[in-house]
Amino acid sequence: MDARSVLRHSFYLFSAVLLTLFTLSILSSPPSHKAELPDCAPHSSLCHASKNSIYSKRPAFLQTPTEHIRRRHSAAVPLHPLDPLTVTEMNRVKEIIQKHELFINKAYSLHSVVLEEPEKQAVLRWRKGNPLPPRKAAVVARIGGASLVLTVDFGSGEVVRHETGQASGYPTMTVEDMTSATWAPLASADFNRTVVARGVDLSDLACLPLSTGWFGKNEENRRLVKVQCYTTEGTANFYMRPIEGLTVVVDLDSHEILEITEKGKDIPIPNAANTDYRFTAQNSYQRLVNPISLEQPKGPSFTVEDNHLVKWANWEFHLKPDPRAGVIISRAMVRDPWTGDMRDVMYKGLTSELFVPYMDPTDAWYFKTYMDAGEYGFGLQAMPLDPLNDCPRNAHYMDGVFAAADGTPYVRSSMVCVFESYAGDIAWRHAESPITGMEIREVRPKVTLVVRMAASVANYDYIVDWEFQTDGLIRIKVGLSGILMVKGSTYSNTNQVNNEEDLYGTLLSENVIGVIHDHFITFYLDMDVDGANNSFVKVNLQREYASPAESPRMSYLKALRKVAKTEKDAQVKINIHDPSEFHIVNPTKKTKVGNPIGYKLVPGGTAVNLLDPNDPPQQRGAFTNNQIWVTPYNASEQWAGGEFVSQSHGDDTLQMWSNRDRGIEKKDIVVWYTLGFHHVPCQEDFPIMPTVSSSFDLKPVNFFESNPILNIPPNFVNDLPVCKADASA
Amino acid sequence: MDARSVLRHSFYLFSAVLLTLFTLSILSSPPSHKAELPDCAPHSSLCHASKNSIYSKRPAFLQTPTEHIRRRHSAAVPLHPLDPLTVTEMNRVKEIIQKHELFINKAYSLHSVVLEEPEKQAVLRWRKGNPLPPRKAAVVARIGGASLVLTVDFGSGEVVRHETGQASGYPTMTVEDMTSATWAPLASADFNRTVVARGVDLSDLACLPLSTGWFGKNEENRRLVKVQCYTTEGTANFYMRPIEGLTVVVDLDSHEILEITEKGKDIPIPNAANTDYRFTAQNSYQRLVNPISLEQPKGPSFTVEDNHLVKWANWEFHLKPDPRAGVIISRAMVRDPWTGDMRDVMYKGLTSELFVPYMDPTDAWYFKTYMDAGEYGFGLQAMPLDPLNDCPRNAHYMDGVFAAADGTPYVRSSMVCVFESYAGDIAWRHAESPITGMEIREVRPKVTLVVRMAASVANYDYIVDWEFQTDGLIRIKVGLSGILMVKGSTYSNTNQVNNEEDLYGTLLSENVIGVIHDHFITFYLDMDVDGANNSFVKVNLQREYASPAESPRMSYLKALRKVAKTEKDAQVKINIHDPSEFHIVNPTKKTKVGNPIGYKLVPGGTAVNLLDPNDPPQQRGAFTNNQIWVTPYNASEQWAGGEFVSQSHGDDTLQMWSNRDRGIEKKDIVVWYTLGFHHVPCQEDFPIMPTVSSSFDLKPVNFFESNPILNIPPNFVNDLPVCKADASA
Repeated sequence: MDARSVLRHSFYLFSAVLLTLFTLSILSSPPSHKAELPDCAPHSSLCHASKNSIYSKRPAFLQTPTEHIRRRHSAAVPLHPLDPLTVTEMNRVKEIIQKHELFINKAYSLHSVVLEEPEKQAVLRWRKGNPLPPRKAAVVARIGGASLVLTVDFGSGEVVRHETGQASGYPTMTVEDMTSATWAPLASADFNRTVVARGVDLSDLACLPLSTGWFGKNEENRRLVKVQCYTTEGTANFYMRPIEGLTVVVDLDSHEILEITEKGKDIPIPNAANTDYRFTAQNSYQRLVNPISLEQPKGPSFTVEDNHLVKWANWEFHLKPDPRAGVIISRAMVRDPWTGDMRDVMYKGLTSELFVPYMDPTDAWYFKTYMDAGEYGFGLQAMPLDPLNDCPRNAHYMDGVFAAADGTPYVRSSMVCVFESYAGDIAWRHAESPITGMEIREVRPKVTLVVRMAASVANYDYIVDWEFQTDGLIRIKVGLSGILMVKGSTYSNTNQVNNEEDLYGTLLSENVIGVIHDHFITFYLDMDVDGANNSFVKVNLQREYASPAESPRMSYLKALRKVAKTEKDAQVKINIHDPSEFHIVNPTKKTKVGNPIGYKLVPGGTAVNLLDPNDPPQQRGAFTNNQIWVTPYNASEQWAGGEFVSQSHGDDTLQMWSNRDRGIEKKDIVVWYTLGFHHVPCQEDFPIMPTVSSSFDLKPVNFFESNPILNIPPNFVNDLPVCKADASA
Repeated sequence: MDARSVLRHSFYLFSAVLLTLFTLSILSSPPSHKAELPDCAPHSSLCHASKNSIYSKRPAFLQTPTEHIRRRHSAAVPLHPLDPLTVTEMNRVKEIIQKHELFINKAYSLHSVVLEEPEKQAVLRWRKGNPLPPRKAAVVARIGGASLVLTVDFGSGEVVRHETGQASGYPTMTVEDMTSATWAPLASADFNRTVVARGVDLSDLACLPLSTGWFGKNEENRRLVKVQCYTTEGTANFYMRPIEGLTVVVDLDSHEILEITEKGKDIPIPNAANTDYRFTAQNSYQRLVNPISLEQPKGPSFTVEDNHLVKWANWEFHLKPDPRAGVIISRAMVRDPWTGDMRDVMYKGLTSELFVPYMDPTDAWYFKTYMDAGEYGFGLQAMPLDPLNDCPRNAHYMDGVFAAADGTPYVRSSMVCVFESYAGDIAWRHAESPITGMEIREVRPKVTLVVRMAASVANYDYIVDWEFQTDGLIRIKVGLSGILMVKGSTYSNTNQVNNEEDLYGTLLSENVIGVIHDHFITFYLDMDVDGANNSFVKVNLQREYASPAESPRMSYLKALRKVAKTEKDAQVKINIHDPSEFHIVNPTKKTKVGNPIGYKLVPGGTAVNLLDPNDPPQQRGAFTNNQIWVTPYNASEQWAGGEFVSQSHGDDTLQMWSNRDRGIEKKDIVVWYTLGFHHVPCQEDFPIMPTVSSSFDLKPVNFFESNPILNIPPNFVNDLPVCKADASA
């Protein structure tokens, strides 16, 4: 009881500080979106379990937005064919469904309620001022043990059920699935006894719903989750205090406890000391640097029209939050500086799937092979961004509107931000050297536009940036921060360890092991380079030999262009010892001097998945078998791990689709790229990880006739702001 | 004459604009270093040739700094054992040498006059307030056809000549070598006739001194340069107007013309249209974004003590310009947040060598296999940075002091800048997910310190950044911008080309081919991780199999640590299909839980050199045969291509040193890393290239007990500045 009251007081203190910060920040910052603590909503199953935990009163995902935000969203109407479902539309889905024969008098849960995007051609044809194509919702529901994929037509009120075939797997968990699973074990006296035996007060318990993966019949025919728990005693960073080895298998539909495994009896729970990362929990702080801020005396250069259309410099694109992908960028177009025309670059780009296998074969760890988008919802886990820290001043914030399990819409405020960035970098430069002595020094600063979200999939935080450059380049960057998933251990020093490799990781602190793991983030990139008709070209650099008669030089490199005819030609394992450029060209369009108009995918942050291709997790994660894939556009192929990923057998992955080896030349094609990270934890990752980032680029290559930013001006001093310190500082 | 007067007027106009900009910028910007146009200095050979070119009156490398700067440098005294030679010391070298028997009554040229750094132990022992170790100069001179390596002792006045052995090659060209070579061909009536026959007015000629490389006896026993020329008619961007195929071989010592080759008679000189990149040369400009600026209401957080000691946040390092390396970072130390101690990270880091082979075996191109540091002087080519554009507001600028060929010191003003950067990025973050519902959102902004220089090695601009992070990471980044080295061509459209591969590049514009080339930039990193006694450890990630009895999982990755015993163990060809981490550890020091204290080199921007190892250019560039090397510390092994690189045979490279296979375990070791770029030009690179960057990191790995920036504060709104637009804007 003592610990509980310490925590409660900490919470009050923390809330008070937050409120103070909020009050301060509202004075001059962009629209703030501090959520009020919600009432326990009637449709939520959480209220029942809420007695058991310090945090149960705050189901943050159902936050009630401020009146201002609520009013804005209630009044919202779709203005673009790709606009996400509005609050009104979601309520209409709920209404239609409740009256439909499939649902009447049945218990059901909705696992996804999003816009069913109109056909690509209809979107491409649409111009502002035109009526919108018919609005429809794509709904994934569970009714009586079946997963249904439905289209709900707002006009006709019709509900169409789609054949899902024999594909294995289950829909994305609802947040209600996840939260209710975390309470489920408490219904078991055995579980409670075990927890107490490990020295943990039940009131300090914090549990996580871990997707089980699929390893055979144990993970078939039932929707499962494995629950593992931690103690919150003495720290907000309960992730560092695992009750190691205790795993509870729960049926997600019945909430039945199927199995309790206790393999950690002898493993102490690591200490709370030095684990809390909150500012208010520090005894002292180090101010290492003076304040620094991105300032724009004339304000930002971008606008967000009609809620979702971002216009900045020479770029324009449609931006929306999505419960599964996090963020979807659509219809990205760049202005040609000579013709003034907006030219297509990418029809749609999104985070399709993540695959995060941990590298420990033991009982409590082997199954940790997460697919965060399809299992947890990458967007569902994206929390409100922190103004001035997650995004700089002058950022614009966009809310997500998602559906709860019963279909009720809720607002995830400030889920995405858009801002301009300037790091002091150089867009292009040339100074004449002392050799020529010409007095030339021409330098142009580099300013970019960043679209950011940050998903907190339990412990880990993924920061996803789409960064647009005025020279036509798009950089897609993923930053990893947050908290490691750690393993409790009897070891307090490596000198107690016979064979360090058998730790499956690094001893980070006394009794804490950071387990080795990989992160793969697979992007869906429906490139439309100056139109939808594209080809994929590998420009391979090969060593050539010159004869002695021909040249004093023995060897040089030649660029050999090879157009990929079919999907298998475009299954690329990147090898720096056999380098290529990867072009997406429009074979029907050429520059004035005759080069095919194109963009190239510039790999970066490449880590290869080394799991055995026949390993069950790798069958499911087979979309990481190659770093690049190209498929013909198919509206149903968007999620690299399949439509239903939880417990899937890998029968609906990008690998499977690509094996069909369809033609991809002169077609509307989709390019897939996987960023990868091998993560061998180190002590600096404890108790919270400094951000590690990787990125790849989409870069114009003979897309423009020449440098498209030749005639941008340099910075002049009187364009820059005049600043002083805040008088209240 | 008409063209000449147009150019003259352009120049006046441009100068006037520059002066206006300068006047505007001086009002509120950091110390400005606009150079006055110098008189034709008496020691310069340029005056004689100056009649022949529009730019000959402006030997920018000998710029006379403003009175203020001149006074500062005249008064400078060394305050740290690693401080570069002062103006006074350089004058003293000149004085001592002139009186020395080796030099008396002889024609000589000085190719390098820099500090001879004291022994490492003496530097490590030195503390502020101690007397400096004896100051000495390291001098490379040419006298009577011989290259001399000398030590000049300021105390004793003694000159020691060092044995240079049988190593091939010549010292770095002096800027006088380079500029005089560009005039040499004009002495030939044949050359002049050829130029005129190609339709170029001699007064429009701009020529470049191109290092010849080494391909056998043609490049032996004489110091050579190949001169190729361009026309400046109608554009400041003469690089886009090559007189293709015309090559003049010049003896650098005698200025004798050895050979004139004309293989381009039928190749037109490309048009001037759309090539000029200067702001003043644009008919119109596009302002794509509103002004944006990094603002620091309390000023920057760093100081530069005693001219060269940079202190910022938890970092401290010595910084100096260098004529060959560009920038040298020494004694980089980071503060341990728990003990408060400054801990060693890197004793010395620098750009050791560049290798830039072009991929065209034909007569006018095969030899283009540049080594920009050893041949041209990477620092000699680094021009003054442009405030507000090369570096943001609040940057600190550092001048270089270099010696002309006769030993006279001159100031390269604002050659290096130091600034703080904030791009809106995140140092670390965690928000609690909707699963737990805890109200936590902790985010810390990421602020870094950047040290920057930009070398303009004729056409190309290399931007080199050393970026320090508060979490202990050092990022070393190279940006490429500037202007392509292009090839004139008869083609105006690719449809005229039978086999595009035989272009050896890309048709960028009518009659302009961008030739394929590589850039390799090799860094010398004398790591002293918590002391000089270090080992190099490969942490190899290998697939392991679990038996079915052991785990439902089939495969996982294990991290196997392997300590490199000798140099050959540490010749690393990076292979993403067999991934490793590369640790530099202090084997005598462990963290509290027993991990070896270390830093890791995190590769990035890896491009493999694919030339045949026996190709003469690749023998010289053999230091790029591996991406990572480790050698035992040896003060004489600093330049990866050898002390004398021009026309070297590759007998003094890092490959040769490493082949000795010396022990590197528990030793003072030096790590070498090569960043690489394959560059297949595209039209966007015309007429000036948007910057392309790559980087690699030095990252603490179990160096700190835990996250060293756990207790830094977030941004609060009243810490940030209050800004408005400049009233004069």
